[in-house]
Amino acid sequence: MRIEDSPSPAVDYSRVFNQAIDRLHAEGRYRVFIDILRNKGAYPNARCFAGHNGPKPITVWCSNDYLAMGQHPKVIAAMEEALHDVGAGSGGTRNIGGNTHYHIELELELADLHGKQGALIFTSGYVSNEATLATLGKILPGCIIYSDELNHASMIAGIRNSGCDKRVFRHNDLAHLEELLAADDPASPKLIAFESVYSMDADIAPIAEICDLADKYNALTYLDEVHAVGMYGARGGGISERDGIAERLTIIEGTLGKAFGVMGGYITADQTIIDVIRSYAPGFIFTTSLSPVLVAGALASVRHLKGSTAEREGQQAAATKLKAIMAEAGLPVMNSTTHIVPLMVGDPVKAKKISDILLAEYGVYVQPINYPTVPRGTERLRFTPGPAHDEGMMRELVDALSEIWGRLELRKAA
Amino acid sequence: MRIEDSPSPAVDYSRVFNQAIDRLHAEGRYRVFIDILRNKGAYPNARCFAGHNGPKPITVWCSNDYLAMGQHPKVIAAMEEALHDVGAGSGGTRNIGGNTHYHIELELELADLHGKQGALIFTSGYVSNEATLATLGKILPGCIIYSDELNHASMIAGIRNSGCDKRVFRHNDLAHLEELLAADDPASPKLIAFESVYSMDADIAPIAEICDLADKYNALTYLDEVHAVGMYGARGGGISERDGIAERLTIIEGTLGKAFGVMGGYITADQTIIDVIRSYAPGFIFTTSLSPVLVAGALASVRHLKGSTAEREGQQAAATKLKAIMAEAGLPVMNSTTHIVPLMVGDPVKAKKISDILLAEYGVYVQPINYPTVPRGTERLRFTPGPAHDEGMMRELVDALSEIWGRLELRKAA
Ligand SMILES: Cc1ncc(COP(=O)(O)O)c(C=O)c1O
Ligand SMILES: Cc1ncc(COP(=O)(O)O)c(C=O)c1O
Repeated sequence: MRIEDSPSPAVDYSRVFNQAIDRLHAEGRYRVFIDILRNKGAYPNARCFAGHNGPKPITVWCSNDYLAMGQHPKVIAAMEEALHDVGAGSGGTRNIGGNTHYHIELELELADLHGKQGALIFTSGYVSNEATLATLGKILPGCIIYSDELNHASMIAGIRNSGCDKRVFRHNDLAHLEELLAADDPASPKLIAFESVYSMDADIAPIAEICDLADKYNALTYLDEVHAVGMYGARGGGISERDGIAERLTIIEGTLGKAFGVMGGYITADQTIIDVIRSYAPGFIFTTSLSPVLVAGALASVRHLKGSTAEREGQQAAATKLKAIMAEAGLPVMNSTTHIVPLMVGDPVKAKKISDILLAEYGVYVQPINYPTVPRGTERLRFTPGPAHDEGMMRELVDALSEIWGRLELRKAA
Repeated sequence: MRIEDSPSPAVDYSRVFNQAIDRLHAEGRYRVFIDILRNKGAYPNARCFAGHNGPKPITVWCSNDYLAMGQHPKVIAAMEEALHDVGAGSGGTRNIGGNTHYHIELELELADLHGKQGALIFTSGYVSNEATLATLGKILPGCIIYSDELNHASMIAGIRNSGCDKRVFRHNDLAHLEELLAADDPASPKLIAFESVYSMDADIAPIAEICDLADKYNALTYLDEVHAVGMYGARGGGISERDGIAERLTIIEGTLGKAFGVMGGYITADQTIIDVIRSYAPGFIFTTSLSPVLVAGALASVRHLKGSTAEREGQQAAATKLKAIMAEAGLPVMNSTTHIVPLMVGDPVKAKKISDILLAEYGVYVQPINYPTVPRGTERLRFTPGPAHDEGMMRELVDALSEIWGRLELRKAA
């Protein structure tokens, strides 16, 4: 049935769906996909297909391919080789026809990266979080999950689907977390789920202190290092590697789609846990496995970043410089201790407006970050400078922003 | 905390996890990944890495790359071009930096394939089912979902996560479905979720009759064509195209990872529904978009199969021949009206044993299908002959099976 054909005035599907869309327009957060293609080898340059004047050159300032590894010659070569060696897709689930030697090699490499016994690849970081947390909760009867209030949607989904009791602790607030842990039955299984780098606020969790609490209250720990893998630590093992505490975490989760530049997600942990998730998680079992082409690319990327620090250093230098230039210009750059540079706007319509002007008048692409990605009232622009964004590009960007800030009469930094 | 370090005898995590694994061993359904690499251009030939004698040649009989499109020169060429043009990954979510011109083109192509206004790509067929059903249920207050008892795990997950009331109807049983529909309040929104080709039983749903019921009871319809897209219909639009009833369905869902040979999933529907799912589904919004390399490959594959019927015809001929040869040999081949050839075993340990002997002694790779993929007591082997499996390979396979059937004293066909 087409939705407009509903014969019953009692259930007018078309009206219900249209109201859902209208709500987005009314709140100024209806999203339009921007139509771009990156130019390989020339990132952050890209082409934009919006409008009718054919592809137009733009500079991308909001990619999560933080280190441009998606364009790295080793990654491209590995993918090309796999494409010619085994073909496009895996042709099956990991259990039924879709396991390949590439998958096994990448899992060994990732386990090594985080100093764990085993690893398991998923089709995305989202699925790795959802499937693992939901399954852990089901395997541990009566488990209580403690979740940072700013945890990513994929962790929230997994925790909800686990059916476990959930306690939300205030962002990075150790006292609050301890209060919640202490209030629960010591005999209940417990799991603390949190991130290392919070990508929208650009801050870092007190991982060691959270591990101390986990030890004290006999809780397992689940750390999402999605925005940190490849980026921090001597070999790109994330904040837990940088801080020398990877072994204290029960499960470390990451993505292959951000700093590693490809696509896919994973967990690393003791072999028993890997075996449980592998055997029980529907989101792992019942889906075509990650294409061997992507796995080969990720393998090359992880291996390269284990040995090379140039990309990480270049990216950190670029982020530091951009924050300084923005602050100098009086722009309200948020307090960031990481590689991400968020600029607070505080209004969804204005955030979108700034982004639209940047694209139309300045050839700068940065996406507005609105609810539900961040809480209402904290809408922002989020810049991800990479090793290839040079000072000239930064000055142009900040000049453009300063002009727009004046034009729209926006608040400057305090 | 490592699980074996639990300081509290009250919660011994290690024991709980090990018990979960022991249950699988006890039931004979602990799964081991088989380590293979397909040989591009030579499918169904592959290499197996198990054991210590180096890669060993095998014949693959259980791939869902039904038409070997994962090896098609047009698909490989398109992926190679995209790899060199834009790089490995998209670098972001569809809303934030990860939309590309390839995604937009593929969505147009898929909408056209199913005669719908719009389409939306997900990272997998699993995620498309989970995200769409969960979100539809949340947008339609009080919605009741009617679900075929053999629906795939991904639909079951989506329905559960929708929070809707659920009614399970007996497999392909129209009378039971009508009974359930008639018993509910006519003013409640309703959705019927089902598959066209059920891949483990190899039968087909009465789609037109289910649409009649949907019209009569004012219900939306959600059809999973995962095992039918590319395979049926003049242009590969699935059973709904073959039967000329695509326009009667509210939502048609498919995968890019089986007959299309790549990876990813999608839905097609009216633009309003696409817009709602795009705007509200966490599983769509909060994840890195499908790699443009995969999207380019899928685009080439969908386009090719719109115009070419040779692959479909070759595959159907192979399936018909294999079923005939198996029946002739007295093997208990299940009653299949589709391209899939399941052989009933009815015991998880024996199913695995047959599969192990086939691989070790005959170089034949076919996976045992055990619970939870099929109900307990209906364990089976599932063969997916493709256009490149020739009669010689089939005779060898059936001779091997006959020998093993005798050796293990298995039941023959009635
Ligand atoms: C903290 C966090 N976890 C998980 C994910 C999901 O990872 P992926 O994009 O690989 O699905 C994201 C972003 O997409 C994220 O920001
Ligand atoms: C009926 C059905 N729907 C959905 C899926 C999931 O599709 P995908 O493998 O693309 O995740 C599968 C199999 O994997 C399936 O058999």
